[in-house]
Amino acid sequence: MKTILARQPFQLSEGLLFEAVTREMPQPDAHELLVKVYASGVNPVDTKMRQAPLNQASRVLGFDAAGVVVAVGDQVSDFTPGDRVYYSGSNQRDGSNQTYQLVHEHYVAKMPDRLSFTEAAALPLTAITAYETLFDCFGIATTPSDNQGKTLLIINGAGGVGSIATQIAKAYGLTVITTASRPETRAWSEKMGADVVLNHRHSLIDQFETQSLARPDYIFCTYDTDGYYDTMIELVKPRGRIATIVAFQEKQDLNALKAKSITLTHEFMFARAMYGIDVHMYRHYLEDVTEKVESGQYQTTLNTVLKGLTPENIFRAHEMMEAQSHIGKLVIEVAE
Amino acid sequence: MKTILARQPFQLSEGLLFEAVTREMPQPDAHELLVKVYASGVNPVDTKMRQAPLNQASRVLGFDAAGVVVAVGDQVSDFTPGDRVYYSGSNQRDGSNQTYQLVHEHYVAKMPDRLSFTEAAALPLTAITAYETLFDCFGIATTPSDNQGKTLLIINGAGGVGSIATQIAKAYGLTVITTASRPETRAWSEKMGADVVLNHRHSLIDQFETQSLARPDYIFCTYDTDGYYDTMIELVKPRGRIATIVAFQEKQDLNALKAKSITLTHEFMFARAMYGIDVHMYRHYLEDVTEKVESGQYQTTLNTVLKGLTPENIFRAHEMMEAQSHIGKLVIEVAE
Repeated sequence: MKTILARQPFQLSEGLLFEAVTREMPQPDAHELLVKVYASGVNPVDTKMRQAPLNQASRVLGFDAAGVVVAVGDQVSDFTPGDRVYYSGSNQRDGSNQTYQLVHEHYVAKMPDRLSFTEAAALPLTAITAYETLFDCFGIATTPSDNQGKTLLIINGAGGVGSIATQIAKAYGLTVITTASRPETRAWSEKMGADVVLNHRHSLIDQFETQSLARPDYIFCTYDTDGYYDTMIELVKPRGRIATIVAFQEKQDLNALKAKSITLTHEFMFARAMYGIDVHMYRHYLEDVTEKVESGQYQTTLNTVLKGLTPENIFRAHEMMEAQSHIGKLVIEVAE
Repeated sequence: MKTILARQPFQLSEGLLFEAVTREMPQPDAHELLVKVYASGVNPVDTKMRQAPLNQASRVLGFDAAGVVVAVGDQVSDFTPGDRVYYSGSNQRDGSNQTYQLVHEHYVAKMPDRLSFTEAAALPLTAITAYETLFDCFGIATTPSDNQGKTLLIINGAGGVGSIATQIAKAYGLTVITTASRPETRAWSEKMGADVVLNHRHSLIDQFETQSLARPDYIFCTYDTDGYYDTMIELVKPRGRIATIVAFQEKQDLNALKAKSITLTHEFMFARAMYGIDVHMYRHYLEDVTEKVESGQYQTTLNTVLKGLTPENIFRAHEMMEAQSHIGKLVIEVAE
């Protein structure tokens, strides 16, 4: 089997330090699946991990995959060889930039029949992030009618997470306001279902005023948390909730949360994987994605496909992630 | 009627700047009650407000009261003269350091029959703070059995808020761990129902280890938020929730919340009053307090009574709040 790995942390300016190696095919443990990877998604977290200190000989990135089960451990009862599956996996083990990958059954769900592998591989990491944000951080209701009248603001609606978060929030009854600036990002966010798209090159507060928009109950920041910190606090409703997936560059004044009694979460979808807590929730959320894709409520967020699992394509994908202007999701086609 | 007011912000070191004045008895507007105040509680928030800039000619502190309704506005249907009531009130208007007070009906509930006025006046502000923290910030279930197996850590269990938060959390099925250090605070916290009382003069992390305690799902900080910031993040379960009612002295690194995907709230019970949002929740929570006192599930947290609504007693109460070592609650007896 083929694996793309890096033997050291590196900046893209240091050149192409991903390399292709051939590894022996692994065998699944009791609760594992061996999956033939057909498509591997690339996310901003790959670029962060690429630069982080390395404690082992090498690392394999890629935390979105769609493929076919080829072998299962003797304790696995919900999957059999031949199943088309998708998953994000764990940041504690090798990722999906390989032709075959081992993954724990709790992390995996059957992928939607109506999607191709590349379309399916676009979804897991971003969808899990959005589900955790909406349900675990914001505590929205599982019954859509109970969320009627509630508004979510997504900072950067056309990014990978923003694109699926918009769809999930809409499916669960929320009103969704997003931000974008270019004509193509605005059009994309509308296609994902945003009720209102604001221009983040102008004051969001002014646009809420002039458009008489209801102040958001929830704000999900997927871009420049420091830059939006004060704005989010000013915009959110009293007792509202803010979540971010973007690390802060500076320390912040938490007393700013007091007057409105605001709740803030630093969402991180690998927390469950890192601490081994409630990892069955990964499958739980992915099963809901599958159901809602099948019923036509969700569409894939795939926008860019790079053909072939090569060091060059992974490098190029990282360049595109670091440019921070990618629309929707980028997936590498591993096998046809 | 008698009112104790201050005409300027002041430090206690400047001397006794509260003064007693006689005011004309006010009349209730459509949704207001006029209450004869029998007991007025003093909280740390009084000391903060005493020092804050003053935008009007004078201010009347006191945000806990128990008394008897003497008149109601023409739109009030749930209360009649003679009702024994209690409430915290709003920081946007004059407080309970008066012999008569106007209060909006949404802020008020009938007080428990089995409590005296001083016992009842000990509860509203701290109970509302604790209810908001448990239900609105932490999102605990309203059905106690659904909270079984969840653990709450309260930093400073013997304070006013810690004392009632312990009882509410226990009534709703949580395991409650508190901190205290003196023999009398430890005994008080146990009397309030704490399952385990840790010594905050020693490492909380070590005590969790040596006593094999389950890591808390929720941490409620009622003392020295900066000092406990790192400890709370280390102790709380992944995807756990932290709330504080104590302002930060310094900016903090919010990236520290990421690995465990922690949620943090700066709880402030006057947020609803300040923004006029969902103020009916004040009554809602107080009605639950009344019900649970009547059924014997909650006891008063009253520990100190000062007899007589005088500038001297309010000054003394503020001195005791600023010493930060008071056990349970302090109430001023206004009328017998």
